Amino acid sequence: MSDIEVTAFSWVPPTARGLVRDLRVRWALEEMGQAYATRLYDRRVSGPEDRMQEQPFGQVPAFRDGDVAMFESGAICLHLAERSKALLPTDPAARALAQSWTIAALASVEPYISMLQMVCLFDADKPGAAEFAPSVEARLAGRLDQLAAALGESEWLTSQFTIADVIMITVLRQLWRNDRLESFPKLAAYVRRGEARPAFQRALAAQLADFESE
Amino acid sequence: MSDIEVTAFSWVPPTARGLVRDLRVRWALEEMGQAYATRLYDRRVSGPEDRMQEQPFGQVPAFRDGDVAMFESGAICLHLAERSKALLPTDPAARALAQSWTIAALASVEPYISMLQMVCLFDADKPGAAEFAPSVEARLAGRLDQLAAALGESEWLTSQFTIADVIMITVLRQLWRNDRLESFPKLAAYVRRGEARPAFQRALAAQLADFESE
Repeated sequence: MSDIEVTAFSWVPPTARGLVRDLRVRWALEEMGQAYATRLYDRRVSGPEDRMQEQPFGQVPAFRDGDVAMFESGAICLHLAERSKALLPTDPAARALAQSWTIAALASVEPYISMLQMVCLFDADKPGAAEFAPSVEARLAGRLDQLAAALGESEWLTSQFTIADVIMITVLRQLWRNDRLESFPKLAAYVRRGEARPAFQRALAAQLADFESE
Repeated sequence: MSDIEVTAFSWVPPTARGLVRDLRVRWALEEMGQAYATRLYDRRVSGPEDRMQEQPFGQVPAFRDGDVAMFESGAICLHLAERSKALLPTDPAARALAQSWTIAALASVEPYISMLQMVCLFDADKPGAAEFAPSVEARLAGRLDQLAAALGESEWLTSQFTIADVIMITVLRQLWRNDRLESFPKLAAYVRRGEARPAFQRALAAQLADFESE
């Protein structure tokens, strides 16, 4: 029996459905064949006080497995991956490389996508947003060029599918919404390879089902 | 004898000195009492081809320890911390919490600071930058309020000093440059506590000495 519990939202705006970060943890768990329970919050309602206790920024996912309580999808995914050969190789050098790429996705790729979402979506109505957007696009494009060069003709970021791909693919697929990924054919194909995995499909269906359930 | 090698820059603009991300790895190594060698790149010169091999974005630090080669300061620091009680507690729940805070610093705090640097420094001359800056400041202030609330009256992010503090303090101290940290007295005091540690002082002196050496 699994004691794993993951928090998720029971409601988000339609454009965010399928993109909320609990998807990363669900996908990792599906790749491991590990069952889990969800605990849902309605994002329209400011959470109970203890929501800030378990997640200091009021976000999802938070994670619990017995005495272990975690937050940040990247941290939870790395924690799970350390316990599963399906998500991290055992060879120390290969493992370290996959851990590097996992952090690269979170710290060196996703921030540019978040900036784009800020100028084009969340703060699009703020002064200067439309004028500044091309500068953000240029920074993002530069970073995606470097990423595509590093990926090259490889199927995954390292010699096998790892947690780094779970994170990088869920980071990049936020760009479907902005229609920016097709300009980078290698990256678009890489994201589609990840999305075609049965474990991803199960994770996505589970997130979407939790929105339908209300 | 240590085989650890860390890459760093031999030259960066004066405003960046003491803030380059190899500082994080140097600080972690100093807390562990672990010796290391540096290999320096001049940032004014486009690197040799193999610089992109070891760091796909052309940045520092990259890290090598025998067969293990890594990039991304956050990944390197977590890798080192997993091997040192000075940087991660052994209790599984305390360890998982420190790992959560490490990723939070990289993925949920630093991106807002990077956005501020983009509008106020690196792309300050671009159309819309000055007009959009207040929106970025507001987002950052909201996140720092949440962080200050989570820190509360604690000395460190968790019940002891960990790698999470190494990362969070080096993330936050980038704000000294923008003069934004004094508005958050708890966070300013927290950063000063970290900067007062002898291991931090040694790491900072070592980074600065490598700029002086040319």
